[in-house]
Amino acid sequence: MTTSATAAPQVREALAAQTIELPSWAFGNSGTRFKVFSTPGVPRDPFEKIADVAQVHRYTGAAPRVSLHIPWDLVDDYEALAAHASDLGVQIGAINSNLFQEDDYKLGSLTHPDPAIRKKAIDHHKQCIDVMRATGSTDLKLWLPDGTNYAGQDDIRGRQDRLAESLQEIYAALDPNHRLLIEYKFFEPYFYTMDIPDWGTSLVHCLALGDQAAVVLDTGHHAPGTNIEFIVAQLVRLGKLGAFDFNSRNYADDDLIVGAADPFQLFRIMNEIVTNDALKEEAGVNFMLDQCHNIEPKIPGQIRSVMNVQEATAKALIVDREALREAQISGDVLGANAVLMDAYNTDVRPLLAEVRAEKGLAEDPYAAFNASGYLDQIAAERVGGQQAGWGA
Amino acid sequence: MTTSATAAPQVREALAAQTIELPSWAFGNSGTRFKVFSTPGVPRDPFEKIADVAQVHRYTGAAPRVSLHIPWDLVDDYEALAAHASDLGVQIGAINSNLFQEDDYKLGSLTHPDPAIRKKAIDHHKQCIDVMRATGSTDLKLWLPDGTNYAGQDDIRGRQDRLAESLQEIYAALDPNHRLLIEYKFFEPYFYTMDIPDWGTSLVHCLALGDQAAVVLDTGHHAPGTNIEFIVAQLVRLGKLGAFDFNSRNYADDDLIVGAADPFQLFRIMNEIVTNDALKEEAGVNFMLDQCHNIEPKIPGQIRSVMNVQEATAKALIVDREALREAQISGDVLGANAVLMDAYNTDVRPLLAEVRAEKGLAEDPYAAFNASGYLDQIAAERVGGQQAGWGA
Amino acid sequence: MTTSATAAPQVREALAAQTIELPSWAFGNSGTRFKVFSTPGVPRDPFEKIADVAQVHRYTGAAPRVSLHIPWDLVDDYEALAAHASDLGVQIGAINSNLFQEDDYKLGSLTHPDPAIRKKAIDHHKQCIDVMRATGSTDLKLWLPDGTNYAGQDDIRGRQDRLAESLQEIYAALDPNHRLLIEYKFFEPYFYTMDIPDWGTSLVHCLALGDQAAVVLDTGHHAPGTNIEFIVAQLVRLGKLGAFDFNSRNYADDDLIVGAADPFQLFRIMNEIVTNDALKEEAGVNFMLDQCHNIEPKIPGQIRSVMNVQEATAKALIVDREALREAQISGDVLGANAVLMDAYNTDVRPLLAEVRAEKGLAEDPYAAFNASGYLDQIAAERVGGQQAGWGA
Amino acid sequence: MTTSATAAPQVREALAAQTIELPSWAFGNSGTRFKVFSTPGVPRDPFEKIADVAQVHRYTGAAPRVSLHIPWDLVDDYEALAAHASDLGVQIGAINSNLFQEDDYKLGSLTHPDPAIRKKAIDHHKQCIDVMRATGSTDLKLWLPDGTNYAGQDDIRGRQDRLAESLQEIYAALDPNHRLLIEYKFFEPYFYTMDIPDWGTSLVHCLALGDQAAVVLDTGHHAPGTNIEFIVAQLVRLGKLGAFDFNSRNYADDDLIVGAADPFQLFRIMNEIVTNDALKEEAGVNFMLDQCHNIEPKIPGQIRSVMNVQEATAKALIVDREALREAQISGDVLGANAVLMDAYNTDVRPLLAEVRAEKGLAEDPYAAFNASGYLDQIAAERVGGQQAGWGA
Repeated sequence: MTTSATAAPQVREALAAQTIELPSWAFGNSGTRFKVFSTPGVPRDPFEKIADVAQVHRYTGAAPRVSLHIPWDLVDDYEALAAHASDLGVQIGAINSNLFQEDDYKLGSLTHPDPAIRKKAIDHHKQCIDVMRATGSTDLKLWLPDGTNYAGQDDIRGRQDRLAESLQEIYAALDPNHRLLIEYKFFEPYFYTMDIPDWGTSLVHCLALGDQAAVVLDTGHHAPGTNIEFIVAQLVRLGKLGAFDFNSRNYADDDLIVGAADPFQLFRIMNEIVTNDALKEEAGVNFMLDQCHNIEPKIPGQIRSVMNVQEATAKALIVDREALREAQISGDVLGANAVLMDAYNTDVRPLLAEVRAEKGLAEDPYAAFNASGYLDQIAAERVGGQQAGWGA
Repeated sequence: MTTSATAAPQVREALAAQTIELPSWAFGNSGTRFKVFSTPGVPRDPFEKIADVAQVHRYTGAAPRVSLHIPWDLVDDYEALAAHASDLGVQIGAINSNLFQEDDYKLGSLTHPDPAIRKKAIDHHKQCIDVMRATGSTDLKLWLPDGTNYAGQDDIRGRQDRLAESLQEIYAALDPNHRLLIEYKFFEPYFYTMDIPDWGTSLVHCLALGDQAAVVLDTGHHAPGTNIEFIVAQLVRLGKLGAFDFNSRNYADDDLIVGAADPFQLFRIMNEIVTNDALKEEAGVNFMLDQCHNIEPKIPGQIRSVMNVQEATAKALIVDREALREAQISGDVLGANAVLMDAYNTDVRPLLAEVRAEKGLAEDPYAAFNASGYLDQIAAERVGGQQAGWGA
Repeated sequence: MTTSATAAPQVREALAAQTIELPSWAFGNSGTRFKVFSTPGVPRDPFEKIADVAQVHRYTGAAPRVSLHIPWDLVDDYEALAAHASDLGVQIGAINSNLFQEDDYKLGSLTHPDPAIRKKAIDHHKQCIDVMRATGSTDLKLWLPDGTNYAGQDDIRGRQDRLAESLQEIYAALDPNHRLLIEYKFFEPYFYTMDIPDWGTSLVHCLALGDQAAVVLDTGHHAPGTNIEFIVAQLVRLGKLGAFDFNSRNYADDDLIVGAADPFQLFRIMNEIVTNDALKEEAGVNFMLDQCHNIEPKIPGQIRSVMNVQEATAKALIVDREALREAQISGDVLGANAVLMDAYNTDVRPLLAEVRAEKGLAEDPYAAFNASGYLDQIAAERVGGQQAGWGA
Repeated sequence: MTTSATAAPQVREALAAQTIELPSWAFGNSGTRFKVFSTPGVPRDPFEKIADVAQVHRYTGAAPRVSLHIPWDLVDDYEALAAHASDLGVQIGAINSNLFQEDDYKLGSLTHPDPAIRKKAIDHHKQCIDVMRATGSTDLKLWLPDGTNYAGQDDIRGRQDRLAESLQEIYAALDPNHRLLIEYKFFEPYFYTMDIPDWGTSLVHCLALGDQAAVVLDTGHHAPGTNIEFIVAQLVRLGKLGAFDFNSRNYADDDLIVGAADPFQLFRIMNEIVTNDALKEEAGVNFMLDQCHNIEPKIPGQIRSVMNVQEATAKALIVDREALREAQISGDVLGANAVLMDAYNTDVRPLLAEVRAEKGLAEDPYAAFNASGYLDQIAAERVGGQQAGWGA
């Protein structure tokens, strides 16, 4: 059994180096179609969101980047926003476009039958690319919410063809150091077809675009029962896994804290990452969170999420690869499984505590943040104004 | 093959007598957590909603009742609202309580650990019972949105016990001619546990309460693959099917137009109703719609829904029951299926057109309404104010 | 409303020309892991299976080809088998390989860690290619049952790499007029990973192989809720839909009669075929059945299946494409849906009866076959010997 | 953090006392409808199966009972079989009836339209009750495989009524110390309706029967996404949880090793057992395994399964109940979850090793058994004859 005492130096190094990108919107209010509950202290603008992001990084040492969402994070001066982030020790990460909150997009955006609306949606991405240039971001992240609710409502193939054209225009606007990351989703906000419902469709479009396009895998965007680690392994094999959107689910796109619903699944995913050498930065996989803290406090929710990813990663790193390979090759089904489970069943929290201590961090970031008084402070200070949410 | 020419008189009578209750909220705006699209002409208050309900009834002749939702349909004078409805030819149907839009209910309502919040939720039902008395409604419809998002968040059994107590208090407040209809739902707005997730739980509580309690079956509230007509047959057998909430789904609680996603399923459901003699009024099954017209116009959406239920019912009514029973008893698997499919494959639209014509209605209510100019009229008239939605 | 009286000549021609390929194994016994029920008259060898296939073609006029499965349809003399088929008016269609019934394949076939076992599995396909040459078949159909039951049991990516190599060897053995059709499946017979679990994986391998490789879509091989017609449209768009395996399902790979579980889905699938011009022979889509008649008689089950596909096709053919396109372009959600539903709700059985009568066939093939006495005849004649099943 | 050093004595006692019942059929061959792979050394009769059961008990000290399946475990002299078991240190547990392997049951057993076939199925249970008397078993376990494959095939309600009658007859034949345990299943071997598809239906029949009837919860018999621990809590609350059939699944009724697919789910289930005081013997919950070791060796598979249940139980036992309750009552969502996860994340293997050592057992039963040479021994000895499987 690997323990904190016996973990190899490269395990500690990998854990110390691991970074997770946070979504600015996780710090604002979110909810279901039934209700968005509010919480005292929630940020009212992108500057306050980034201040909260910086808290997560301060206590975990593992969250140095924040994804922005345009127009939710629209500001007059993006250089100022990037400088504000930099002052607080974090950087701007991926820029997320928004194709679901304009009345024009009721029946589609990049796939809309009307070329004028497609143009509007394409132009929005050019605006996002400008934000990338202003903030130093290199990843343009596109989740296409387009779809239909009723059979016959629109032509499935026609929408694919229009999508391909729209993506070509966006792709053509990228700088050479930019990437276009294309996310898929099984359903919601539309309930009959989605125009990018699965990794296959996302891949088909990425292959048509070129090397700067890659797939985003949101762990909550699959059909029930889908083996996600298989998709991870396949996309890494093809060199086309651009980023994760981490969260967890029991039913649909529940957007719960990553690792909360099925920690063993998260471990299996990270195991594919580790065994296929995709944890290191040059593999080009951006590990992001994308969650909704509907009923729990947001900053502690993000800290717990980062810790959950770290624990899954630590378990993946201590898998005895040689023993595993031997058992696999010899056809020892239970033996191979046992090697994997031995790592999973190990309590890696002491190991992570040590890695944190070596970096001068609190051993338990969740407890340390909760003891800091920051939540009380923002609840007291952030009075008045409009709390940020999915609309801003 | 049964056709409009050969349909038995009792089939025509049953179709002519069938009624479907409409939800007031289907005429307001709805959407997903991502966006609520607005539409010109949407009602701004319960009186305008009822005016739109009356249009559906005017053209279909089959929608004489409207469900209210409290507090969305809060008015100062419910007698006036009931009189307004009556003037327009419709009546107030079930009164729906709302347990999901108070900040107090973030962690539960009737199941909340805090007795003060449970009391608030119970009192809300007493308020609804007052509305029932004022409007002549006899059905109190309770959908419990309570649940949890994370394992350990609350005690599953403790919540059941508190729920049982809260329901007892509500039940005790009913008048003798009132019913308490209890709906179940698989998930949403919570994503780990729901406190009434399935028909079994709903039934357990109804049995504990007594004869005035019955189950509401919402066709969109089941796990993937669930055989809904089995549940219909079982609840009818137990005398505990109080009402339907009709809608359709491909993925989750999509709330699409009933019959749109799987018309064969709707037929199979109505077949169990017909074969178990639960279509007639004395069976006590209230056939209601509960849908969201997120992207389509609302009144035509409701008209189409009523027509879909009528078509499924007509097909169920023309099943050759004797031939079916013979094939079933003789173990003729394909033959029995063929009898059912013969009815399903029949085009019953001519038959329904005749039944409508006999009642002095347009043969195609959808076309007739669209030709009436009503949508243009309300778009022109209903300017200013706040469009109704799930919040009002 | 389109009726038999108004259907355009090209609709009748398309229906008259449509062919559906039957699987030889549907005429043998099948069942679940719990029990294989037997039926009097079931064929005992490939010659008797083909005799039964010919009955389906005799009464439907639409089933002129039979898929063989090797080794279940192993015979000494394939020319003789092909001649026997030809004498009865049918031809040999696709040759299906079998990778799931050798003890050697317990842990994989084309993906097995042991190169000797991979070679055995590859060689089996070369044997199948010889059968193709002997019978005039041009389609080699490969369903890969390989997978794992436990996390860690084998290396996911390693298996993909080995699969790619194995497929290359098989592909290299094809004649220029041959196709390699690669099927995917969500789960079963393995329950953790499948090595080709989805259309994306199948496509990735087809793209790596070349123009002679295409995807097989089995309608029962998807995750719950998957929108199958989207995949159909996408694969047709990419020129990579090689064949269907038609059947229907409510839960898993139930292999029920096509159109029995969800006739509207079958219509939507055929609608994508028709609207994307993939019904005509030069589109290269082979429409096959793949079903298990566990409890119903097999020949009538196949006849019903052919009729179900024909009815869905007829409905797809009578969709008013111009009206549909107009409604789609104008954003008339309900109007577009109504155009589609108008076709679906039409009773096309009279039209198909006419098309059959024009070909000199009985108007109702199911009734005509049942009246023929053939089932009694084979029950009387086929006494002794071993009934064919999945093992032979 | 609770560790082996700090675990309370009552935790150790509960772990030392826990027993898990093994199914005789897990030691025979099993498979899918595609293939049953064989393994050297597999038992050829019930006596050899019990010898293998005894091995699991010898190394785990926690598996003192074996469930029999009639007729698979049919012997001439059940007293001799019970004595054989007793000699090897184990006892006969539940008697399982078999309603799925007679040709007569093709269209149903206890629900069959033909009273003669229902009588045959009822009589089979009387035979099982005789086996109970001969072996000292007190639990009659009934899994009803009955169902239909096609809509219309039979009358859903009629089948419920016939089922209720058949169950009454079986129940009337029980001795006063007997229980009738009724299992439900979502689907398979039928694919349209199952006659007992869910816990609600099982409960309805148990309530109609009386106090000697209780529900069996098989962890693999639910719709995708079903929250199983909720059902556990509800059935315990109602005093109607009679037994578990433990196994794990990713897709359907996969019958994998319990805890293999989702160890966190198993922990949550055991957490409901522990927190609702249902672990102790007087609660009347029989914890049984029901699995298929299709590709892995059977005895090690059973040992691993017992260990997985023990680990989940240990984690449930060390939950800090007071801290949990406080967090729950105070509405501390993340805090309550953290209390639960602290137990789950603890490595309880050292604690279990100590508990075993205190009982004089090997600390790692899996390793100890594998080192024993028993598998080689039975492979050498059990040559010739017919290996046991689901047919015998």
